Amino acid sequence: MADLAATAGVALRPHVKSHKTALVARLQLEHGAVGLACAKLAEAEAVVDALAGGPDGDGGGNARDGRVGILLTSPLAGRPSAELAAAVRRTGGRLGVLCDVDVGLGRTGVVDPAGARAVARRITAAGPVLSFGGVQGYAGHLQHTAGRAARRDGARDAALRLTAVVDALEADGHEVRLRTGGGTGTSGLDVELGLLNELQPGSYVFMDREYRDALGDDPEGRFHQSLTVATTVVSANQTGFATVDAGLKAMATDTGPPVVVGAAEGVEYLFFGDEHGLVTDCPAGPRHRGDRLELVPPHCDPTVDRYDAIWLVRGDEVVGRADVVARGRSQ
Amino acid sequence: MADLAATAGVALRPHVKSHKTALVARLQLEHGAVGLACAKLAEAEAVVDALAGGPDGDGGGNARDGRVGILLTSPLAGRPSAELAAAVRRTGGRLGVLCDVDVGLGRTGVVDPAGARAVARRITAAGPVLSFGGVQGYAGHLQHTAGRAARRDGARDAALRLTAVVDALEADGHEVRLRTGGGTGTSGLDVELGLLNELQPGSYVFMDREYRDALGDDPEGRFHQSLTVATTVVSANQTGFATVDAGLKAMATDTGPPVVVGAAEGVEYLFFGDEHGLVTDCPAGPRHRGDRLELVPPHCDPTVDRYDAIWLVRGDEVVGRADVVARGRSQ
Repeated sequence: MADLAATAGVALRPHVKSHKTALVARLQLEHGAVGLACAKLAEAEAVVDALAGGPDGDGGGNARDGRVGILLTSPLAGRPSAELAAAVRRTGGRLGVLCDVDVGLGRTGVVDPAGARAVARRITAAGPVLSFGGVQGYAGHLQHTAGRAARRDGARDAALRLTAVVDALEADGHEVRLRTGGGTGTSGLDVELGLLNELQPGSYVFMDREYRDALGDDPEGRFHQSLTVATTVVSANQTGFATVDAGLKAMATDTGPPVVVGAAEGVEYLFFGDEHGLVTDCPAGPRHRGDRLELVPPHCDPTVDRYDAIWLVRGDEVVGRADVVARGRSQ
Repeated sequence: MADLAATAGVALRPHVKSHKTALVARLQLEHGAVGLACAKLAEAEAVVDALAGGPDGDGGGNARDGRVGILLTSPLAGRPSAELAAAVRRTGGRLGVLCDVDVGLGRTGVVDPAGARAVARRITAAGPVLSFGGVQGYAGHLQHTAGRAARRDGARDAALRLTAVVDALEADGHEVRLRTGGGTGTSGLDVELGLLNELQPGSYVFMDREYRDALGDDPEGRFHQSLTVATTVVSANQTGFATVDAGLKAMATDTGPPVVVGAAEGVEYLFFGDEHGLVTDCPAGPRHRGDRLELVPPHCDPTVDRYDAIWLVRGDEVVGRADVVARGRSQ
């Protein structure tokens, strides 16, 4: 992803919500990321603390000055919003604010140029504590669209919506310095379209079954599966399947089952309760209690945040550990 | 549940996997539970440590001697199995072992009386380190069966399977001291049938949308919703729905959406990405940014283990905190 961004001349601000580790964040910054994107205030605080010297932090941060620029990609409301405002007042800092633009997902952001102008005017009118920084347009609805042509059509439509907002803001006298957005599924198209000057993808560091299904036909094939859940056969008393010790608590369940790594055609994992899974038609005869399997999670983000740590493995050897921070909190 | 068990003259060994807190475990022990059931070795270790004096432990344990009897309800394999065996050797302790019986779920356990006899003989032959304690028959497939009559038919069938195993073991000269099983959904039927002498339910402490749907027609109606996920409206720019800050990472997703507490007919929550949810047709006009909602999780166990703590609330006041231990580990 760093190569893609560098070649296209756009900035890369990887999303922490996918990995929630200081180790991966530091690697991303060392490979040229301009900063980090975070989904929640608690996530930003935890990763900054960990980068500064937590359990696996080493005072890293970015290469230039030890400081890390964080973009919060979701709007805040309630307590986190009040806490951030109080922190800015207390430190005398200045907060750059973007106008979030709904480019078709419908989740957050202004829905038209008039809404964007109103937001930019409010930011500018708030005086020196806030500065208007540009726009964000994240096309979350396109990231898992199967087929590059369908994704391209969607990305063009999203770019048109964002362009209409940028034009309106510039006509209103606002400098739209930052145009941030993009995700793993559309990243190649985002740089082709040339509207964004910053990408904020997250899942590319791990990938998952959902992305494999969507991007399997992508001739670019840039990113590969790197995340698995290890599990052990705990019962093989039945004919035709074995029971493993990874169930509904072991991974995300929102997009179907995981894939059994290296399994023969027809071997499937099915959820089998909170603590267990069922693996069908085990290859090489019935599985034995104690056998180990690896599963590619259906969806990486809500799998990673179920664990205390990610173990880094090369071949059969554990070569490191990345603590998963900023989990277990809702805001 | 303590009343149900006491009235029926059966022991209650509540399952920790639902709440994973020392605080609830201590309350259960204080209300007469004979010990605790745990799904994993790590879960047992964490809750015993927390009961002995962790962050919210106070040296509780059970009322009699400060020790807590733990039943591991799932078979161990691989590393946890080796660790437990090593600990028993090291401490010179004695491990009571049950024969797990498949009563229709098909997940774990022996599938017929011959299998049970073989297990009991192996345990007995292993000498003084292991002692044969009885049988476990957990009918997980019946807990969410809608309709009491259907659950009763299933529970009878499960009881017949377990009875066949008990008879075979006794004919073989084994004393079947413990007959443990049962869950929240079948607990009333389990005591009626009179075969089990110990219940090991978990979810009754919280309940969830799945249990509400299944047991809604149960005239006994013993257990009530006590667990909610609080969420805040972060965007209300669209017509007909609002976006809240609880998404796929905020709760279990395996059994559909949560229920919005106190909402009018037709108001629904839909998952809207990793960090967000969508609430339709907001009552009393469009919701405003900052509004708070509460959601009854679809499934309690894989929701609780997503959080660092459960906040105890009476009315509008936070009156306590229960740390969620034994999460983030797979075994």
